Order: sequence, then structure tokens, then C-alpha cells
Amino acid sequence: MSLLDSLKWRYATKKMSGAKVPTEKLEFILDAIQLAPSSFGLQPYTVLVIEDEATKAKLLPASYNQSQITDSSHLIVFAAWTSVSAEKIDTFIADIAAKRSLSLEALNDYKGYISGSITRLSEEQQAIWNAKQAYIAFGIGLTAAAEVEVDATPMEGFVPAQYNEILGLTEQGLTASVVLALGYRGEEDWLAPLPKVRRDKDLLFKFI
Amino acid sequence: MSLLDSLKWRYATKKMSGAKVPTEKLEFILDAIQLAPSSFGLQPYTVLVIEDEATKAKLLPASYNQSQITDSSHLIVFAAWTSVSAEKIDTFIADIAAKRSLSLEALNDYKGYISGSITRLSEEQQAIWNAKQAYIAFGIGLTAAAEVEVDATPMEGFVPAQYNEILGLTEQGLTASVVLALGYRGEEDWLAPLPKVRRDKDLLFKFI
Repeated sequence: MSLLDSLKWRYATKKMSGAKVPTEKLEFILDAIQLAPSSFGLQPYTVLVIEDEATKAKLLPASYNQSQITDSSHLIVFAAWTSVSAEKIDTFIADIAAKRSLSLEALNDYKGYISGSITRLSEEQQAIWNAKQAYIAFGIGLTAAAEVEVDATPMEGFVPAQYNEILGLTEQGLTASVVLALGYRGEEDWLAPLPKVRRDKDLLFKFI
Repeated sequence: MSLLDSLKWRYATKKMSGAKVPTEKLEFILDAIQLAPSSFGLQPYTVLVIEDEATKAKLLPASYNQSQITDSSHLIVFAAWTSVSAEKIDTFIADIAAKRSLSLEALNDYKGYISGSITRLSEEQQAIWNAKQAYIAFGIGLTAAAEVEVDATPMEGFVPAQYNEILGLTEQGLTASVVLALGYRGEEDWLAPLPKVRRDKDLLFKFI
């Protein structure tokens, strides 16, 4: 499908069938998420790919009992870093050096520039900034799912503190930011046949 | 191009040529942005599409003089709502009613559910939440640009307060959140030939 056809085809699936997403389609979606851009290229998040039924069952009450949690094939949890440590910046710079065959010294100015930008932010501001980066990857991930005709539900309706506890995220310096349930629409999904509602272009866009 | 090829092809263009993006390609990108999902479907942002050279020139110093501001064909400024008023929710509900041929009464529970969710948030939290929704559309917009081989620079390096003043956003209840410069790479862009750096999959993903 073309990108626009994919975006028209997709919708926030309310009822999933429990059918499994095949490995090659899951890989396609994860490849797209990995390729998502982020500020400086830091990718300040970990992406949890949850197929384990017991874990999904634990997350169900932390998600207002929305059935997609357990009827999905895989739950993708975008967990943003709670802050950006100097160590994380070092790791990132070392990764650039390795992948672009550069010395660490050659990247010293860039490292200072990143550090300076980030240390100007409070920890809370860093967490918000990291979460925004995760939303870019989330948008691209749900587009990729549609491209391979995998249904997806973008979900903010969950209790982050409970997710953090169940998934052990806090001790890893992570916090659950947004969730994408992947799977296939069930036959009885009331939302599936309804027209998509989007703000009209003359309201959404302003041309200057 | 396939979605993955598009994402591999694109990069954060540092030097643009000044060439113009044709109308049909711009329309494709804006169509994708319009189709982006958002929480409840609210699309709590306005998307400014700036082609006017004088406006771009004014934004240049508010963007740390990054040349893409004036060398781009179009600047797409995602301006999030600073809060979600009851009036905006009413407009949204009326839009659903019209597009799905429903009565306003039939949507009363849904409206109450949305209002309840939003009034639990402080104004500051609403603004952050709105900006996150804009980042979804931003991620989809930059993917769409790549799909039609339009170069793009995702930009957070600007002073929102100055953008808000220059573009008159504050009085419209908007704040500049993130910018996408659209155009074509210049021949002398140092970043173009360098390998893309992304976190390795075993670090970015955790399988459960």
C-alpha cells in the first residue's frame, strides 16, 4: 500500500482477535521504529516488545481492562529515559565513532554541544523531551504496522506508575510513555466500519 | 519506495539548495499529517505551512541562524494548543457528529469522558500532552516527505517564545512545538554521505 492508503486503512482497533503477527511483519515494524529519527539521534528510550501472556495479563488492570492488552499479538511499550546521564551521552558518542570510523576526539565538540543542551534542562524537562522523541518513533511504528496490514491500537490509557512497577522500569531509569498494541481486528469491532474523523484542512493548516 | 527504504534514504538535511517542492508532493505530505492519529482524535495543534520568504527570514535568527530555515522550500511549524478548552471539545464532538451522521446526544457520554480526562490535567500538562500528539504527526510527516523523495530537517533548535511572537501564535492559544523544514539537499551537505547511526537492536529493544 502507499503511505496514504495505509494511513486511511488503519484505525485505533478496539477489539482484537488474538491472532498472531508473523515474525517478518513484526521485524518490519521494529526496523521502522529503529530507523525513527530523534533529537541529536539519541533515541532516548527503550522499546519493550511484549508477547508473554502472563505479563500482558498483569498489565490488563493497569490499562483500565482494555481488551487489546490481552487480545493483541504483541504489546509495544515505548519507555522513555527518565533523564539523560553523562554515561548515556558517552555511549552515544562511542556508537557514532564506531559507525562512522571517527575518533572520540573528533566528536568532542559535538559531545560538548549535546551535553550543554541537555544539562540546561531540569530532570523533569529531560523526561518530557525524551518522551516526545519516543512519540516520533511511535508515530512511525504505527504507520509501519499499517503498511504491512497489521492492526494497531495507539494507547495512552494506562497507569504509567503501575507499568513501571510491573515491568521493572523505574530501576532501569525508564518510564512507560505510550503503548502500541499490535494484532488483528476482531469481527465485532464497532469502530471498524465508521468513517475516519479528521480536522478539515482549512482548520488544521494555516498557509503563510 | 517502501517505508523502510524511505526511512533509510532520509536524513536530517543540514544544507538545502533552495529548490521548491512541487505542489503535489507538498499535498501528499500534508495529507499524511492530516491523517495522523492523536489521543481521542483531537489533533490538538495547528500546522503552519510557511512559504513566504519574509516570514522565513524573520524566523532565521529565532532558529540559531540555521540555513535550512531560509533555504527550505516550506517550513512546517507544528504549533500545539496551549490548553484544551471546552469550546474545542464541543467543536470536535460536532465534527464527529457531522462526519458519522450521529446526533450530539449520542456523543454525550464520549464528550464527558474526554472532558473528564482532560480537566484532570493542569494547563501545563495539557500543553505537554498536546505537544506529544503533534510529535506523532511530525513523525508521520517526515516519513511522508521521504516517501516522495523530499528532503526534510526535523528541527527543535529554535526559540519557541520568539516563534510565538513572530507568528502571532500566543494570541491564538498556540505554541510552536517542533519544525520540519522541507526542501532538497544541497550538493555540499557534509552529513549526506555519512552512515546513519541508530542504536543497535539488542540495546534499543527488550523482548518479554
